[in-house]
Amino acid sequence: MKIDVLTLFPPMFEGVFSASILGKARDKGIVGLNTVNFRDFANNKHNTVDDYPYGGGGGMVLKAEPIFSAVESLWDPAQTAAPKPRIILMCPQGEPFSQRKAEELAQEQHLIFICGHYEGYDERIREHLVTDELSIGDYVLTGGELPAMAVIDSVVRLLPGVLGNETSAVTDSFSTGLLEYPHYTRPVQFRDWLVPDILISGHHANIEQWRREQAILRTWMKRPELLDNFPLTPKEKRWLAELELKKNQPDSSL
Amino acid sequence: MKIDVLTLFPPMFEGVFSASILGKARDKGIVGLNTVNFRDFANNKHNTVDDYPYGGGGGMVLKAEPIFSAVESLWDPAQTAAPKPRIILMCPQGEPFSQRKAEELAQEQHLIFICGHYEGYDERIREHLVTDELSIGDYVLTGGELPAMAVIDSVVRLLPGVLGNETSAVTDSFSTGLLEYPHYTRPVQFRDWLVPDILISGHHANIEQWRREQAILRTWMKRPELLDNFPLTPKEKRWLAELELKKNQPDSSL
Repeated sequence: MKIDVLTLFPPMFEGVFSASILGKARDKGIVGLNTVNFRDFANNKHNTVDDYPYGGGGGMVLKAEPIFSAVESLWDPAQTAAPKPRIILMCPQGEPFSQRKAEELAQEQHLIFICGHYEGYDERIREHLVTDELSIGDYVLTGGELPAMAVIDSVVRLLPGVLGNETSAVTDSFSTGLLEYPHYTRPVQFRDWLVPDILISGHHANIEQWRREQAILRTWMKRPELLDNFPLTPKEKRWLAELELKKNQPDSSL
Repeated sequence: MKIDVLTLFPPMFEGVFSASILGKARDKGIVGLNTVNFRDFANNKHNTVDDYPYGGGGGMVLKAEPIFSAVESLWDPAQTAAPKPRIILMCPQGEPFSQRKAEELAQEQHLIFICGHYEGYDERIREHLVTDELSIGDYVLTGGELPAMAVIDSVVRLLPGVLGNETSAVTDSFSTGLLEYPHYTRPVQFRDWLVPDILISGHHANIEQWRREQAILRTWMKRPELLDNFPLTPKEKRWLAELELKKNQPDSSL
């Protein structure tokens, strides 16, 4: 897979693209990670890439021209027979990013990310260039760089050959549909706090049962909406119904 | 504000902490940004910070000891009268991060972030050390580093003196409660695509009206749930009700 990122801040990506899973995937040749400073495509003597908005109002707007030119330096339909890449605009109005979207993007050959930085985007970029608009969550960030890094990380780790055995099985809360059960490692006693007896009992079936219950319980407490589509057993449903009843009758525990 | 980040990958943060708003906030002395490699607090000769999980299963678990020791090197209740910092664990099971949470954290004096990296966390860290668990979204990432960067960016930009006039008014979709209206800047014609006439009409009241309608329309199309709490005028409500009707009767436009 080839990934290009259009940004005014290429150095932001250096440490992230070199470390850990992304760095390893790049070193193995599984993914190419490249940044493009679209200021290099400014078509005016001051190298400006933004300008005042038509109609007035505060803030600046990223111009269409340097963004189109930068993308066409990477993929130009007039010059290449290569299929159109996914051209992804990171913006607060975008489709909320999800694990399903990561899986979809992991099937592609070429991704181009466009990262604005506190400016708005000229609407013609959105209408005539991009294929996807993505947001990573409902909070305000300074630019599209950190969101692009998050999307890239979540996509690249899905590519075949990227994750070794030591990592593939872990922390994939969203692939099981439940939040994770509690983990413990050595020492058995840290300060006053002990590992639950069951985990050192050696009874594997009991441990599995405890872990599933803990995962369901934690999901029920913190993210109950995730249980809507999770295949609970009839017994587990009764258990949660009882807990629900207790939660709503605080006096019953007196 | 003082921000410390516990991570096994300090170089990931260098470019991000130096660029743009975070770099400027640091240079102005508004925020201190510091990384701590908690491997330096490993208490064994191989410098390991993780170990196998009790009860078996795949993956590794971050040990409690180096995390407690690293946090206590930054804030030790036995040594200081400073109030307890917010100690924030980045993890998929955490509370979904939101703009409201960013505003809450922006009131604090000291934040400590704990970033695991594909391992789980020993549950005693969660139970006896951290004050907050945060997730930036329902997608699987390699580690807590990118989520911590996103939270830090969204918090620091809220600190007084960080944003200049050029940026404060912009792209704050979530502070108005609507998605943004479309922006356009020069040239009036780019390739075949023109700026809407109204934006170059000079009629400011009409422009304001158009922008509000576009913002409502875009929100209705892409994120209708955001309108539930937005104060629409009775006229706007009737307009959306008509659009809703049209959407559900596709033949009516024939």
